[in-house]
Amino acid sequence: MNKDLVQAALAYHAEPTPGKISVELTTPAETQLDLALAYSPGVAEPCRKIAENPDDAYLYTGKGNLVAVISNGTAVLGLGNLGSLASKPVMEGKALLFKRFAGINSIDIEVDTEDAEEFIETVDRIADTFGGINLEDIKAPECFEIESALIERCSIPVFHDDQHGTAIVTAAGLVNALEIQGKRLEDAVITCLGAGAAAIACMRLLVSIGARRENIYMLDRRGVIYAGREGVNAYKQEFANRTDKRSLSDAIAGADVFIGLSGADLLSTEMLNSMAQRPVVFACSNPDPEIKPELALQTRDDLIIATGRSDYPNQVNNVLGFPFIFRGALDVRASCINEEMKVAAVHALCELAREPVTQEVLDACGEQSLEFGPEYIIPKPVDGRLLSWLAPAVARAAVDSGVARIPLPDDYAPVL
Amino acid sequence: MNKDLVQAALAYHAEPTPGKISVELTTPAETQLDLALAYSPGVAEPCRKIAENPDDAYLYTGKGNLVAVISNGTAVLGLGNLGSLASKPVMEGKALLFKRFAGINSIDIEVDTEDAEEFIETVDRIADTFGGINLEDIKAPECFEIESALIERCSIPVFHDDQHGTAIVTAAGLVNALEIQGKRLEDAVITCLGAGAAAIACMRLLVSIGARRENIYMLDRRGVIYAGREGVNAYKQEFANRTDKRSLSDAIAGADVFIGLSGADLLSTEMLNSMAQRPVVFACSNPDPEIKPELALQTRDDLIIATGRSDYPNQVNNVLGFPFIFRGALDVRASCINEEMKVAAVHALCELAREPVTQEVLDACGEQSLEFGPEYIIPKPVDGRLLSWLAPAVARAAVDSGVARIPLPDDYAPVL
Repeated sequence: MNKDLVQAALAYHAEPTPGKISVELTTPAETQLDLALAYSPGVAEPCRKIAENPDDAYLYTGKGNLVAVISNGTAVLGLGNLGSLASKPVMEGKALLFKRFAGINSIDIEVDTEDAEEFIETVDRIADTFGGINLEDIKAPECFEIESALIERCSIPVFHDDQHGTAIVTAAGLVNALEIQGKRLEDAVITCLGAGAAAIACMRLLVSIGARRENIYMLDRRGVIYAGREGVNAYKQEFANRTDKRSLSDAIAGADVFIGLSGADLLSTEMLNSMAQRPVVFACSNPDPEIKPELALQTRDDLIIATGRSDYPNQVNNVLGFPFIFRGALDVRASCINEEMKVAAVHALCELAREPVTQEVLDACGEQSLEFGPEYIIPKPVDGRLLSWLAPAVARAAVDSGVARIPLPDDYAPVL
Repeated sequence: MNKDLVQAALAYHAEPTPGKISVELTTPAETQLDLALAYSPGVAEPCRKIAENPDDAYLYTGKGNLVAVISNGTAVLGLGNLGSLASKPVMEGKALLFKRFAGINSIDIEVDTEDAEEFIETVDRIADTFGGINLEDIKAPECFEIESALIERCSIPVFHDDQHGTAIVTAAGLVNALEIQGKRLEDAVITCLGAGAAAIACMRLLVSIGARRENIYMLDRRGVIYAGREGVNAYKQEFANRTDKRSLSDAIAGADVFIGLSGADLLSTEMLNSMAQRPVVFACSNPDPEIKPELALQTRDDLIIATGRSDYPNQVNNVLGFPFIFRGALDVRASCINEEMKVAAVHALCELAREPVTQEVLDACGEQSLEFGPEYIIPKPVDGRLLSWLAPAVARAAVDSGVARIPLPDDYAPVL
């Protein structure tokens, strides 16, 4: 980050009041009667109702539209283990995005423990407070154990966005990019550089929508994860192929797709040149991608490239997913966010990108035109249609897959 | 509650959206630059700062103005153990009051456990998220253990309002009532009907401001708690007097003060008549007091009576305390709310009641006049001066007693 951005970011967080979110009243609290309804004695009545029927919490409290963003700060952005308190600006930022993009009330909770079991216990005990839980910035492999334990114990959606949000947006972009390149996901040879939470979730989701596991080569710091390699955790093991490939150069030669969730400048022009015809490169390392888009496009003009950055085309940004996925899940009181709902979000994102772009989006992006093609494979975060496309798709998938606890309203059309 | 109030309370909680509070943005989040400052990449900078210096969380996050209202629902209002989820309307109501009266952002957390150690662990692990913790509706005697363990473990104020809020407002009212009756707290014989969290905290605070322990008779369901009585927990034991008194009739004969934190209609006119000259009765059972004020005043005209109700004079209402006490504590980053701060709040309440009432207060109460005297011993919750009287007094006491972590600003004058 340049110095100006650093100063601007600090000022943004300090003013007008420290932080980015506040709690406000949604009901009047001026007269004596108001207070008698909001608190004692009136408040006893909704308490009694909820004690009789726990689902009444969705009628008389904010639970149904409240998502907690919870972290222990063990993997904050790309900065590593900063501890729970130092992760608070990120979590408050996520809460801000939930509200801004999907009208969801969201608060952050920082849990001061690196022990997975303690973390699980703590979140499980406070989970009733919320309508959903977004786990964030928890390091692998603990994040897998934490998420699956909480999904099992909680009756509300628990979603580790670093895994699934990234996977959903990446998958949508990749499906569209392959379509433009005239390739099928079923045939694509995929090299995935990175074997952390996001990488594993991405590859799992790609497999679930059609990619073939044997076509995927995943690499960690030690190279290709191959069948029989020592010291590979159970999560990476899922992608251990029978192969002689050992290095990134080995794995990328002839590949159709490169997914980078690793570090700056790890993809060389030589490697890029060794890929198949019409390749797709997702260089998602932040802030510096695995290869700079200008260098990549200079090296090969048959390429489609996406990054995590807003200053290049094709930004893979989680904000395209989580606000709307939770909106859809909350609105039918889904008990979880299952594979069907994730896949529905992928398809809705794919389809929205193929729609003509509105003038509003062009204005917000400062673009003259945007057309489905190599430089526009996924919607822009500023696209106001995301809410009305994704949330209903996710909600419908929840109903169809049997995890919704109330039906989809006939006139369901979420707006901000 | 009458049927109309029940219906109005349910409607109030259901509309315009379920619940009473929302989370809103305090910073702009419209442009791409806004989002780059609020979230990635800009947010990395405040994270780094906080990782270097944890106190920077007060500069760059909402921590310093955020209070969690935390319960396990084991003693919800007078309704008993309804479970954590059913306590949510009360906790959201308390959050609403924090904002309405003192501009403090507040959220509720319901902890699903009745085990004190589990509760303590859970709250301790999430405490860093907040600037302060208000414990609420946790049954005695666990509430004592929970509060003292959390005070010890946490570096932020932890305050069980059912204990100390009640104690502070009761003490303030009692000091003024005794003044009007021409009596001294040091000499007053006090009968306390009730031996729960609020009662014990009230008596402790009265002792700390001058009442003599040997003049206090505390009664639980089994009668007077006397030295040598079997099966008395350690908290009640503090008030076990060497006495032959056994029943309420025994204890109240000749008493100057009756404090009721028990149940409806437990104080008879005979008992009232047996009290000393110019007695003070705090009949705080809610919604129905230990004796109806009209009956009490009909029985004795030398009486001062206070209740928990807003439809009689002299309402003992916790909202006179907690919002302003936390405001003062947060504004000097007090590490706790100590005895000095509680006593400062008592004195500030006493003094404000002796000030001429503003027209604003009269209008809000629909009164022609209010003058310090038998029917006006404590301020009204609608008194807009509470914030500017109590918060500075509490903040100054924090500074003077050495628990403030930053100095009191020279121009400190909290406003909404």
